[in-house]
Amino acid sequence: MDYNKIFEDIYTELSKIDNKGVVAEYIPELSKIDPNKFGVQLTTVEGDKFAFGDWDERFSIQSIAKVFSYVLAYSLIKSDLWDRVGVEPSGTAFNSLVQLESDKGIPRNPFINAGAIVVCDILVSELEKPKEDILTFIRELSGINSINFNSRVAESERSTGFTNMALVNFMKSFGNIHNDIEEVMDLYFNLCSIEMNCMEVSKSFLFLANNGVVPYSGKSILSPSRTKRANALMQSCGFYDESGQFTFKVGLPGKSGVGGGIVAVHPQRYCITVWSPPLNPKGNSYKGMLFLEEFTTRTELSIF
Amino acid sequence: MDYNKIFEDIYTELSKIDNKGVVAEYIPELSKIDPNKFGVQLTTVEGDKFAFGDWDERFSIQSIAKVFSYVLAYSLIKSDLWDRVGVEPSGTAFNSLVQLESDKGIPRNPFINAGAIVVCDILVSELEKPKEDILTFIRELSGINSINFNSRVAESERSTGFTNMALVNFMKSFGNIHNDIEEVMDLYFNLCSIEMNCMEVSKSFLFLANNGVVPYSGKSILSPSRTKRANALMQSCGFYDESGQFTFKVGLPGKSGVGGGIVAVHPQRYCITVWSPPLNPKGNSYKGMLFLEEFTTRTELSIF
Amino acid sequence: MDYNKIFEDIYTELSKIDNKGVVAEYIPELSKIDPNKFGVQLTTVEGDKFAFGDWDERFSIQSIAKVFSYVLAYSLIKSDLWDRVGVEPSGTAFNSLVQLESDKGIPRNPFINAGAIVVCDILVSELEKPKEDILTFIRELSGINSINFNSRVAESERSTGFTNMALVNFMKSFGNIHNDIEEVMDLYFNLCSIEMNCMEVSKSFLFLANNGVVPYSGKSILSPSRTKRANALMQSCGFYDESGQFTFKVGLPGKSGVGGGIVAVHPQRYCITVWSPPLNPKGNSYKGMLFLEEFTTRTELSIF
Amino acid sequence: MDYNKIFEDIYTELSKIDNKGVVAEYIPELSKIDPNKFGVQLTTVEGDKFAFGDWDERFSIQSIAKVFSYVLAYSLIKSDLWDRVGVEPSGTAFNSLVQLESDKGIPRNPFINAGAIVVCDILVSELEKPKEDILTFIRELSGINSINFNSRVAESERSTGFTNMALVNFMKSFGNIHNDIEEVMDLYFNLCSIEMNCMEVSKSFLFLANNGVVPYSGKSILSPSRTKRANALMQSCGFYDESGQFTFKVGLPGKSGVGGGIVAVHPQRYCITVWSPPLNPKGNSYKGMLFLEEFTTRTELSIF
Repeated sequence: MDYNKIFEDIYTELSKIDNKGVVAEYIPELSKIDPNKFGVQLTTVEGDKFAFGDWDERFSIQSIAKVFSYVLAYSLIKSDLWDRVGVEPSGTAFNSLVQLESDKGIPRNPFINAGAIVVCDILVSELEKPKEDILTFIRELSGINSINFNSRVAESERSTGFTNMALVNFMKSFGNIHNDIEEVMDLYFNLCSIEMNCMEVSKSFLFLANNGVVPYSGKSILSPSRTKRANALMQSCGFYDESGQFTFKVGLPGKSGVGGGIVAVHPQRYCITVWSPPLNPKGNSYKGMLFLEEFTTRTELSIF
Repeated sequence: MDYNKIFEDIYTELSKIDNKGVVAEYIPELSKIDPNKFGVQLTTVEGDKFAFGDWDERFSIQSIAKVFSYVLAYSLIKSDLWDRVGVEPSGTAFNSLVQLESDKGIPRNPFINAGAIVVCDILVSELEKPKEDILTFIRELSGINSINFNSRVAESERSTGFTNMALVNFMKSFGNIHNDIEEVMDLYFNLCSIEMNCMEVSKSFLFLANNGVVPYSGKSILSPSRTKRANALMQSCGFYDESGQFTFKVGLPGKSGVGGGIVAVHPQRYCITVWSPPLNPKGNSYKGMLFLEEFTTRTELSIF
Repeated sequence: MDYNKIFEDIYTELSKIDNKGVVAEYIPELSKIDPNKFGVQLTTVEGDKFAFGDWDERFSIQSIAKVFSYVLAYSLIKSDLWDRVGVEPSGTAFNSLVQLESDKGIPRNPFINAGAIVVCDILVSELEKPKEDILTFIRELSGINSINFNSRVAESERSTGFTNMALVNFMKSFGNIHNDIEEVMDLYFNLCSIEMNCMEVSKSFLFLANNGVVPYSGKSILSPSRTKRANALMQSCGFYDESGQFTFKVGLPGKSGVGGGIVAVHPQRYCITVWSPPLNPKGNSYKGMLFLEEFTTRTELSIF
Repeated sequence: MDYNKIFEDIYTELSKIDNKGVVAEYIPELSKIDPNKFGVQLTTVEGDKFAFGDWDERFSIQSIAKVFSYVLAYSLIKSDLWDRVGVEPSGTAFNSLVQLESDKGIPRNPFINAGAIVVCDILVSELEKPKEDILTFIRELSGINSINFNSRVAESERSTGFTNMALVNFMKSFGNIHNDIEEVMDLYFNLCSIEMNCMEVSKSFLFLANNGVVPYSGKSILSPSRTKRANALMQSCGFYDESGQFTFKVGLPGKSGVGGGIVAVHPQRYCITVWSPPLNPKGNSYKGMLFLEEFTTRTELSIF
């Protein structure tokens, strides 16, 4: 299928629509981005590549990184994970504390902030050098060694991240954080600061479309069964309280970040990454959501 | 694949596990069922059939019927539906009133009780004889004319259904019920009382695995795009606050009922229906959930 | 103290303030009232009377009547009452269902709608002719036999009272309503429809300022200890989620109604009733609240 | 009235009742206390003193100190206070985060933890040496210079106070904490660690029974009107989600602490302080509550 042509057509069509989204402003580093940036890249499991626009410009992947940390933790530990974080959609905003109170410190899933913080706590327990190790992991997945944290972004998040500090303290009060809070949050804030371009994101997610095996290296990251479950979890929980909408309209497992990126996985076929900074009220890329809805509608391909 | 052999193997294995489930007791008609009943039936889109156990014994399908009412409403009306009911998982119990208060009377999705009641209200508005029409619709889908309401069950639900009466009154206070409450609830309680066997359920859901077309009659119920969305909605919302677990462990769109039935759809392939009356604490069939998890694990087939 | 002069002074001062309140509009009968009506009446335990404005015009006392039903139930039964309704402020709106869900059908106190409905259920159990008996009780307290229900108001509330119907059904689902819902709600809606003027309200509450004894008849309604507790309950719970504000600013036990009336009790001294129909966002009389705040400030008399 | 005799009688009677309370165990310093300690002290505005048991042994006053911080802030600032903290009972546990989320970081009242932390933030803004100044203030109120923080208790609270750290971070995310979190919490944890005996607590609260004037020094702390409001606030909010019960059964404004102390104020008459470490499930002294209920019942004196 000529995805390049489809990309261009959809882009042209979306250009006519007023972008009601707003660029994330809670940290200076994110607010400075040009709202007109737009990129999309698709890589198939066979290695074919399709791209459009600013696909090769790096952006702050933010919560997309929560899939990397989750997969790494899932590959490291056996059973303990699901005692400490659930697999249910939250039905509430990504940073809500309400459910944590009724659920006694157990976050609903690893893709809301609280859940990703618990995953970071697990990585701090399991790894000797968690920051270096997660970076090595992502570089292995993507095959690109220049991928890195953005320390200014991490520092900016740290100095304004009071809600996340509330979450980690609250979970520690329930005994669900085992390590020192500062160390856990240092990993968390750095994780969110990673910068990649659309092509790099697609490439690094490709093992999820390929039964857990990185196509170009042959390395197995997760078993086929666990790979299916990781995809299922993105389907249920990848878009905060808009996960149902994404499932309904796009029909692929995926994950978004407040940097404006969205990645979606079509098992056995491809990964697609779209980037457009302005966000809708739920914190997901306004045009990215529309683009992917239009893409799966036109290609008539979704997992359902 | 020899599904009959797999069914038998899994059944034998599950027989060794203590059934921690409890048969629904809130209405006498349901509580009288033999807890050892167990049936499973799979029908492929090509018409192949596989079955085991009590697959040909009718049971109260209860909330499985909410898919029929939703599809019928979805096929009847255009845009209005999504102003009145959402497509997000609720994250709470099937009969919770809490979200309705914060969401001003708009239920999260059509598969929780409140959402199914709104769908019934829509059907009362759209159809001349809603009770007869929904029955005709289900008979058409399944090709079996003896499918019917169980009036004793409907009456039993009516006389004890105070939570559902609270839900409908509460939504009417927000203006989200347009018709007379008694008429809406008469349809709702009858809908839940429908009795079918595993084979009949599988057969009547088969259009959802076949791009919206009933295979044996060739009749188109929904467009391919809407069919995908109906499946997506079952994936997100089919199992109340256990939807994430079902997605994670089974990996197929599906719907459960408190009668102990579960139906799951593998698009382009098959429908499978399992029936085992004892329920887990979330209100889903205890052994039915385990059976389907084991089934998609052994066949290595899921949508992810 | 020359209360007449103080009444006039405060009234003059409040006249300069823009009334930001809005007359209750949810039933036609209430919305038709002239928003400029204003009356105040104070009766001392010695029988002295002070009044201003429209003090002798009857209005719909609405939730003020919940004190009568509570006192009557409290005088009829022993211990059972506090198993079925609490004595804590709700911290939420008068008609919220959220707490009922977490508190398993036990309302926080007898002065929110749910609590008053439980009290009506108790009265239906305890009394042969509950509607007549509650009317007789209020006539005894006030010594005025022409006090009556307004059947048009009661009917109007009945036909639009979906939130209250949701509350009673929800509580019945938890087993906290023992009688037929229609009978309980008939009593409840009639209770709310009672019409009295300021003087009649003050007079009928006077036993609460007089150790439980009706001053002019000498009849004992409650023991001194129970009288204190009834006053305490009005202090904690008389103004929905504005009870703290009323306690803070006025400093007397009291009760409001959406008809715009407020009654306050100064133990050992007097009862004061003020009436001004426009309501603040919490459902309490906008100018009535200001009047009483100014009144206890000027007289430097409150229970604290 | 011979309060000494009444104290002894009630104590004897309560001795027969099994103490179902449990000593606070969340910090080692509190858990080590002898659960059989019991003291009570009453001081009248005229200076008469009555006491029984361990009235002269100092204990950790904990949340009782929140009245001191609130009164000091209330005396220092004009209007800003009520934009940042409410006067409504919370209806929930003392350390709940749920309401903060819906109320956008504004605590319900100054006597729950979140509210007291905001008050500490105000004191950090208003005072040069907040820790010294609050201590000086309490020493002035009581006339006793040896009153001090217990640094071990403060440190213990600091090292385990994750819920409180969650609260302060969460409020800062809403902009309702203006100063550095560490500085605010240092004041808060020290405030809670203050140790006083029953007599010292009674004496230091006496200005609240005396129109805002410290009886033995003649110093005016609050105006009469503000004094009434401070008492009203204790009445509404002094006992977390048991405030209604205390109002209902005891009928006096008061404040409790998890050290097992309770102080109650009878305006124009006296202050009474009771101390018994084991706590009921709501975090209030089990026998202290019973003692005060019995005390106001026997003396037939309450504000209602």
